[in-house]
Amino acid sequence: MILDHIGIAVKDLDAAIRRYETDFKCKVELRESISEHKIEAAFIKLDNSSIELISPSDSSSIVTKFLSERGEGLHHVCYEVSDIKSELSRLDSLGYRLVDTSPRKGARNRLIAFIHPQSVDGVLTELCQKI
Amino acid sequence: MILDHIGIAVKDLDAAIRRYETDFKCKVELRESISEHKIEAAFIKLDNSSIELISPSDSSSIVTKFLSERGEGLHHVCYEVSDIKSELSRLDSLGYRLVDTSPRKGARNRLIAFIHPQSVDGVLTELCQKI
Repeated sequence: MILDHIGIAVKDLDAAIRRYETDFKCKVELRESISEHKIEAAFIKLDNSSIELISPSDSSSIVTKFLSERGEGLHHVCYEVSDIKSELSRLDSLGYRLVDTSPRKGARNRLIAFIHPQSVDGVLTELCQKI
Repeated sequence: MILDHIGIAVKDLDAAIRRYETDFKCKVELRESISEHKIEAAFIKLDNSSIELISPSDSSSIVTKFLSERGEGLHHVCYEVSDIKSELSRLDSLGYRLVDTSPRKGARNRLIAFIHPQSVDGVLTELCQKI
């Protein structure tokens, strides 16, 4: 499996970006608004993977709920697969609880789908496939 | 920065290893007891990084506390650096709260040191240097 990125929930996206740029000497790959989920996201390039910093853009965002319940911190991991449809089908047949039963369009030209943390030792797990 | 591994806290290490081996088709790199922290750990090889599954071997382990407070799930991230001493000194001068003010011997022939999650947007952050 290829680790595509780690998702980190933050309250102040600009401050977090500055930390990774200034203190950790990383570059921002992409910054975008994901209106569907009411979040702002920034992808930070690592040498062998990426970090997705996510922050709510609205108090009704699912990330607002996460931040109020658990505080800032690690939110999800995303693995790259070559065929996301067949992988979802395979995991479904193994009894995994799928958040998305079919892939949808995500950031950075990828199809994405989430698997419920209850099925993966408490880890909200995203799959992605490059388009 | 190179993402060395992601740490995931689990209750049942054997079951979690089976998941990564059987369902996710990954290989175990190493399994070991870290008596100092009363944990059992297994490193799972990804194509571009690793996962460290950690489980308490004693009720007084710091991971027992984590599991009872937050449940299973993402625990820490570890970045590989080329000179851990100078990196700790640099982060210290920037005001980062260091858990380990000097590096200590970790698994897989690495020097390691932790940075407090309060300093890194709620993310318990480990640095490592290959020996």
